[in-house]
Amino acid sequence: MTSKIESVQNEKIKVVVKLALSSKERASRGLFFLEGSRLCGDALNSSLSIDTLFYTAQGLEKHSETVRALSAAAKNTYEVSPAVAKKLSQTQSPQGIFCLVQTALLRKADDVRYSCKYVALENIRDPANLGAIIRTAEALGVHGAILCGCCDVYNPKALRASMGSLLRLPLIQCDDLPQTLQQCTAHGMRAFATTPDETAKKITQCTLTGGVILVIGNEGNGVTAQTMAVCERVTIPMLGRAESLNASMAAAIAMWEMMKQHS
Amino acid sequence: MTSKIESVQNEKIKVVVKLALSSKERASRGLFFLEGSRLCGDALNSSLSIDTLFYTAQGLEKHSETVRALSAAAKNTYEVSPAVAKKLSQTQSPQGIFCLVQTALLRKADDVRYSCKYVALENIRDPANLGAIIRTAEALGVHGAILCGCCDVYNPKALRASMGSLLRLPLIQCDDLPQTLQQCTAHGMRAFATTPDETAKKITQCTLTGGVILVIGNEGNGVTAQTMAVCERVTIPMLGRAESLNASMAAAIAMWEMMKQHS
Repeated sequence: MTSKIESVQNEKIKVVVKLALSSKERASRGLFFLEGSRLCGDALNSSLSIDTLFYTAQGLEKHSETVRALSAAAKNTYEVSPAVAKKLSQTQSPQGIFCLVQTALLRKADDVRYSCKYVALENIRDPANLGAIIRTAEALGVHGAILCGCCDVYNPKALRASMGSLLRLPLIQCDDLPQTLQQCTAHGMRAFATTPDETAKKITQCTLTGGVILVIGNEGNGVTAQTMAVCERVTIPMLGRAESLNASMAAAIAMWEMMKQHS
Repeated sequence: MTSKIESVQNEKIKVVVKLALSSKERASRGLFFLEGSRLCGDALNSSLSIDTLFYTAQGLEKHSETVRALSAAAKNTYEVSPAVAKKLSQTQSPQGIFCLVQTALLRKADDVRYSCKYVALENIRDPANLGAIIRTAEALGVHGAILCGCCDVYNPKALRASMGSLLRLPLIQCDDLPQTLQQCTAHGMRAFATTPDETAKKITQCTLTGGVILVIGNEGNGVTAQTMAVCERVTIPMLGRAESLNASMAAAIAMWEMMKQHS
């Protein structure tokens, strides 16, 4: 049985708006916000629990199959007015489908599989960059991402930029990246840190077969010295103006080289 | 001698706001808008003419060298109030440096140098994508970009995303891309069009030496059939979910492969 919410002043709606805006709120409630037929459908096809579905009459009409499936899976379902949908939406033309989903994407560092290929993101701060890198990682067949000090994976901008890849790619949260890398290399993996420093080994000359972790650093400052110290240093050799290659483009090229050697 | 503009209602300021927002306005006046010490400095170091400089007292204090050099080059210079700077700025914390620059970035199709490497962008509509691709092209040493049906290169979002690369990389405007490509291949160049179609030749198996044009298509629809017909078809072989690779990431990987083979 579906209840209706007509007013933007409804307390539940106020909570949803907070969840969309605040990583603290998400952490304390253990829920995150998703918008749109595609992302909500991705959540449905994942192992995540759908806590609440909000839909408009128009959303139901246009995406009836998705809304019905989400409604069957969700603990709570509310039909909302167009005014409420407008309040919740972060897009110009809302589809009228919104979910609250349990925050259960992040695995622990001991989930790393030592024969696989990972990208490790250290202090990536821009949600759009995080999403774009994760999207590319999934596209290229990278097996998972290790995250340390990055922006919140449940940030709506990151989720949108990832086109749902954040909901599908195995994500490992780690508080001490050098320690995790050392544990992995002790088990036969190789850890490479990307740097614009031209004296580093060219990525085209590295053997990237077997278990590999490729570390991408912060947009402005690169990989930290502590992490660099436990990695082999690799660079993307460039003919042009190296300072112009941004973090997500460098990540794309480095991951491409890593996966090319993967058979 | 510098005049002062205190009011956001000033007619000159209204024109600048229009130039920042409207590609029609830019085309009719032959001027575009740049913001910030770095982009305005890039314009100064290019062959472009600086028409007008606007700066705040704070902008002069913090970036005195850039403001003085711009003022010496500009036909007109105005000191503006913080309120005017806020009106003009598209950032949260304006540096207080703005220029109007003459629109003279685009060269004609017969400027293609047949021994060089180009990326051709067909119907790229998102200014952020256009800027990001041009930025990566410059970083990787691509010699120029051929543009057909793309969004305006003078769009402030494109200019910001390009980190000034749009002001430095040779840009060639072309109205009929298939015709331009045929002219270039008749002079010994090779034209490759990227496609997600797995039956196309793998980019890793293509010979990309000598004069090459690499065509990247629209974000949603890819390269047009007419253009595809005059190109060799290449694909980026992927182990993962190919539909997830976006236009700018695909462009980065394809350009990387093209430039790797360039000696």
